[in-house]
Amino acid sequence: MSAVRRSFVSELHDRAGKTVILRGWVYRLRVLAKTTFIILRDCTGETQCVASSESLRDLHLKLDDAIEIHGAVRSDDRAKTGIEVEITSTKILNRAANVLPFNSSSDITDVSTDIRLEYRPLALRNDWVGDVFRIQAAILKSFRQYLTAKHFTEIVSSKIVAGGTEGGTNLFTIKYFDRVAYLAQSPQFYKEHGVAGFERVFETGHVYRAEPHATSRHLTEYYSLDFEMGFIDGPEDVIQLERELLTFIFRQLNTEYASTLARYRSAPLPSMIDVPIWDFTECLERLRLEFSRSDVVDDLDPEAERQLCRMAEQETGIPAVFVLGFPLSSRPFYTYPRTETSAAGFDLLLNGLEITTGGQRLHRRQDLERAIMARGLSPASFESHLKMFELGMPPHGGLAIGLERLTAQILGLSNVREATLYPRDRYRVTP
Amino acid sequence: MSAVRRSFVSELHDRAGKTVILRGWVYRLRVLAKTTFIILRDCTGETQCVASSESLRDLHLKLDDAIEIHGAVRSDDRAKTGIEVEITSTKILNRAANVLPFNSSSDITDVSTDIRLEYRPLALRNDWVGDVFRIQAAILKSFRQYLTAKHFTEIVSSKIVAGGTEGGTNLFTIKYFDRVAYLAQSPQFYKEHGVAGFERVFETGHVYRAEPHATSRHLTEYYSLDFEMGFIDGPEDVIQLERELLTFIFRQLNTEYASTLARYRSAPLPSMIDVPIWDFTECLERLRLEFSRSDVVDDLDPEAERQLCRMAEQETGIPAVFVLGFPLSSRPFYTYPRTETSAAGFDLLLNGLEITTGGQRLHRRQDLERAIMARGLSPASFESHLKMFELGMPPHGGLAIGLERLTAQILGLSNVREATLYPRDRYRVTP
Repeated sequence: MSAVRRSFVSELHDRAGKTVILRGWVYRLRVLAKTTFIILRDCTGETQCVASSESLRDLHLKLDDAIEIHGAVRSDDRAKTGIEVEITSTKILNRAANVLPFNSSSDITDVSTDIRLEYRPLALRNDWVGDVFRIQAAILKSFRQYLTAKHFTEIVSSKIVAGGTEGGTNLFTIKYFDRVAYLAQSPQFYKEHGVAGFERVFETGHVYRAEPHATSRHLTEYYSLDFEMGFIDGPEDVIQLERELLTFIFRQLNTEYASTLARYRSAPLPSMIDVPIWDFTECLERLRLEFSRSDVVDDLDPEAERQLCRMAEQETGIPAVFVLGFPLSSRPFYTYPRTETSAAGFDLLLNGLEITTGGQRLHRRQDLERAIMARGLSPASFESHLKMFELGMPPHGGLAIGLERLTAQILGLSNVREATLYPRDRYRVTP
Repeated sequence: MSAVRRSFVSELHDRAGKTVILRGWVYRLRVLAKTTFIILRDCTGETQCVASSESLRDLHLKLDDAIEIHGAVRSDDRAKTGIEVEITSTKILNRAANVLPFNSSSDITDVSTDIRLEYRPLALRNDWVGDVFRIQAAILKSFRQYLTAKHFTEIVSSKIVAGGTEGGTNLFTIKYFDRVAYLAQSPQFYKEHGVAGFERVFETGHVYRAEPHATSRHLTEYYSLDFEMGFIDGPEDVIQLERELLTFIFRQLNTEYASTLARYRSAPLPSMIDVPIWDFTECLERLRLEFSRSDVVDDLDPEAERQLCRMAEQETGIPAVFVLGFPLSSRPFYTYPRTETSAAGFDLLLNGLEITTGGQRLHRRQDLERAIMARGLSPASFESHLKMFELGMPPHGGLAIGLERLTAQILGLSNVREATLYPRDRYRVTP
């Protein structure tokens, strides 16, 4: 172990005049005849380090090598951070390969998604890719922070289940000892049970859909931001909480990641407090009038989602709209009815993509039984779930936000895979 | 929708003299000849509500019904919280069943784990059970908060993988379209890749072990608190960070959940800063001298873990010890060696149970290849992983803490199932 502790780059300002040990990657390298400049990068930032080119010659330093530098910190107005490290010795901790398809400091906008995935760690060290996941981590942090402050309890529910939440389609099967089990499509039942226990619960976790389609919007494994709340009056309560939640998350991002966001977007993230609610039938009418679309009837297609967001942006300045009251038949059996044929369920469309599905749920056992039978399913196969509705289940509702979709829409990425560290689809289970 | 907004119980202190709407569960019910007292409970607390028994007679109120109360808030020194609500009207939102095996306000220490699971939501509404998961949520919050402040980036890695991290044993298989995939045993590889990208990463997520044994310590699905950090000098750096991390988490719990903890433990949670490191060979020697155990050779058994914690408690006052330097052959192939035969890997034992496994990892491709071959495995089958070590992988290490085990040890629960919302084992995939 070294006698002098390693310093982070972010600590250098307090160390002017001192000797330090730095560790990090060679992010940029400028070799002049007499002097070599190394921009060293660690998890806290970058700093310029200087040595005589002669002293470094035998090391054959190159971009993305992991190195250790001993040196003296001095103030230098020419350096971007006002600080420079005069190198006394340099050690290679681990070399990068001689040939790499790109470097952490490269412009990688032209590097394909496949190559970025194949060299995932290197891509992450590149800000254009790495910042996507820093923003994603910040979304997660703010999501949990806001809901915790609003009396929600975080739950961790099982992803290995005995059956589906919606009747058994699109489930991945697991060989579970001598029986079959499934990967959970949603924590829906568990978060409803959570409401009966804690009144307000949230969960951040994976969900699985064995859907074979390969689009820019679908993954077989995605990360779902779920909450569920009891004692509501209607789906509007859930919508209002999402407005406040997203506004909080966006404000935190604007504050903590202003310069990062500026590289992906032309404007800061908007307040979501005034995002309107349009009834599903109103949406059909608007699509007919504005875009002559008479083909949209039971559900919205991707084009309709883009068109509705465009209309919302024209009217409110924000390309987002809550669509409420989808046809009851197109929503899961546990959906609370709004009218005889429409559901107290909603989607949130943001920048042309559905990023949230939510709504009020049935809370009485007999209503659920009727709804299950109306779908041609058997209440008996949901018995362990139905029993939970005899324990004083309050009226309740909630929603699920797809983390990858939300990240992609915030940053203007055209494919959810770009907002997924290790995407899974029909054809991909590696890396 | 009501014109008056629903109030939370925690807001009543600011509403004295006002009319309010409350929603929650009947937690306690005392019916006297003239007057009835309802202790109403929502996600923010409990409050006493009073009405004439006559006015409530037709409602047939009972424990755990979900109700709405309209009433006037008044200060009352006889009420526990100094506040009482004089009921003007009561509405039943959803009834609980007439016969339940216990109530949310029951003493359920004698209710079996199976019944608690079968009635999970009702058990959660009981403080003895519910507080276990409130503490668990607080552990999660503090874990993430501490690491975020220490420059760690949260990652979300895939749980569907093409192979195991340790050679393919104890993996659950998934039918993944027309191929086979597996449930991840650990985010080990992904977090190492994360180090090459971000230097410091953490993840909180499920891991899966297809282990048939049914003990009080094992689950087939558990929640793993993982971190991994680059540019370390040795496993002591990881140990030191865990000491600080656990001390932070425990201090937060002592502050925010003092009265809750007091019901499970006789003393607040200790500082973990001085938890000692004992070499594995030193542990064997201590077990031999103190407990005449000559049967412990390659690994520690549960009895040895308890004995070591007892010795640590006698010497330090804290029943915890880091055991460092397990035999290399008993650790995974990616473990960094400490000596020729011992590993730079450690376990943390707390209150007699291993709650953490961690260590330094190999960071050079050629060392990994040698280690893989020494286990009789083929480097070719790890190629997509090995490639990541050519991208400037720094020396690194990390650890994994079992959330259920940590929760159980903090609260003195004898079975990890009591610290798992929906436990999964050889025989259980429901509820």
